[in-house]
Amino acid sequence: MAKSLDFLTEALRRLPGVGPKSAQRMAFHLLQHDREGAAMLSRALYQAVEAVHHCALCNTFAETEVCDTCLDERRDNTMLCVVETPADQLMIEQTLTYKGLYFVLMGRLSPLDGIGPKDIHLEKLIGRAADGVVTEVVLATNFTNEGEATAHYISEMLKARGLKVSRLARGVPVGGELEYVDAGTIARAMLDRRAT
Amino acid sequence: MAKSLDFLTEALRRLPGVGPKSAQRMAFHLLQHDREGAAMLSRALYQAVEAVHHCALCNTFAETEVCDTCLDERRDNTMLCVVETPADQLMIEQTLTYKGLYFVLMGRLSPLDGIGPKDIHLEKLIGRAADGVVTEVVLATNFTNEGEATAHYISEMLKARGLKVSRLARGVPVGGELEYVDAGTIARAMLDRRAT
Ligand SMILES: [Zn+2]
Ligand SMILES: [Zn+2]
Repeated sequence: MAKSLDFLTEALRRLPGVGPKSAQRMAFHLLQHDREGAAMLSRALYQAVEAVHHCALCNTFAETEVCDTCLDERRDNTMLCVVETPADQLMIEQTLTYKGLYFVLMGRLSPLDGIGPKDIHLEKLIGRAADGVVTEVVLATNFTNEGEATAHYISEMLKARGLKVSRLARGVPVGGELEYVDAGTIARAMLDRRAT
Repeated sequence: MAKSLDFLTEALRRLPGVGPKSAQRMAFHLLQHDREGAAMLSRALYQAVEAVHHCALCNTFAETEVCDTCLDERRDNTMLCVVETPADQLMIEQTLTYKGLYFVLMGRLSPLDGIGPKDIHLEKLIGRAADGVVTEVVLATNFTNEGEATAHYISEMLKARGLKVSRLARGVPVGGELEYVDAGTIARAMLDRRAT
């Protein structure tokens, strides 16, 4: 088999959820039926790796020092909502119930996987939440065991620094991941959020 | 969301079997946890698109004018085995029952999908099979409806030109795709191949 094809198949296996058979199928498909798509994906990967960094304020993916959301002056800068991922932030935005700012952990505490406070940027969160402007931090981590533990940890940490901390109401089904919950449920949970 | 990230998510959807949710998950994963993998995949795609073409003789993917298999002088050049894909060729190689050469259709006849004789390079196959050296063509297309129809079509076409044509014996389960059949079954089918 052509060497570049082996290399491509191997590289495709770096994608999450792609095993050897589907990597081979993807490589054949691209070379046989969609070389334009392959070239486009090559450019997109290169560009994303070069251009995408983390927002200095909210830690989400951004191409500028500070992201558009953090720069938006119409937003309520006294509220800070903590989410696990950019996808969760998008879900909350879609509910139209929240007009404050965000902090994106890019993960959750997971001692079994070796993911500790450092890996989810808690130092950066403390600095952000203690800017003297933020008065309430809304914890919107997932309602899984790990998400709940993360919320508890952050809550203790921020309350120790005198901040008001709330948690989305348990309108979100227990064990549910925000990304897969309908916007209506999240909207209700946002309105019913409670102090922790 | 960062524009390069949107572009990357969109490009990942060009991969077969990847929907919007998994494209987003792949993009986040690469940027958050495996930028090295993303850069590697970018290079692999670029290199494959640039370097990989089709072997002038057997039509499989190759980086040279003629592939290594076709150039291998130890192989029996009087036998030509016709397969649908490079993966099928690999499966047959693994059985160690065949020492001849190959022709890779890179598809199968499928009138409903608009895939006709031209799309599976049958002119090239005729030229290859009628080189005056090949004495037997073994049809090893899949035992699906489309694979059987393709074998029948090719068989008639080559027999009209006076070539001896055989088909893998039906040791391969009906409806089965070679890529998923164990090597032992394919080995038996190769030994039991019959004239068509
Ligand atoms: Zn930001
Ligand atoms: Zn070849």
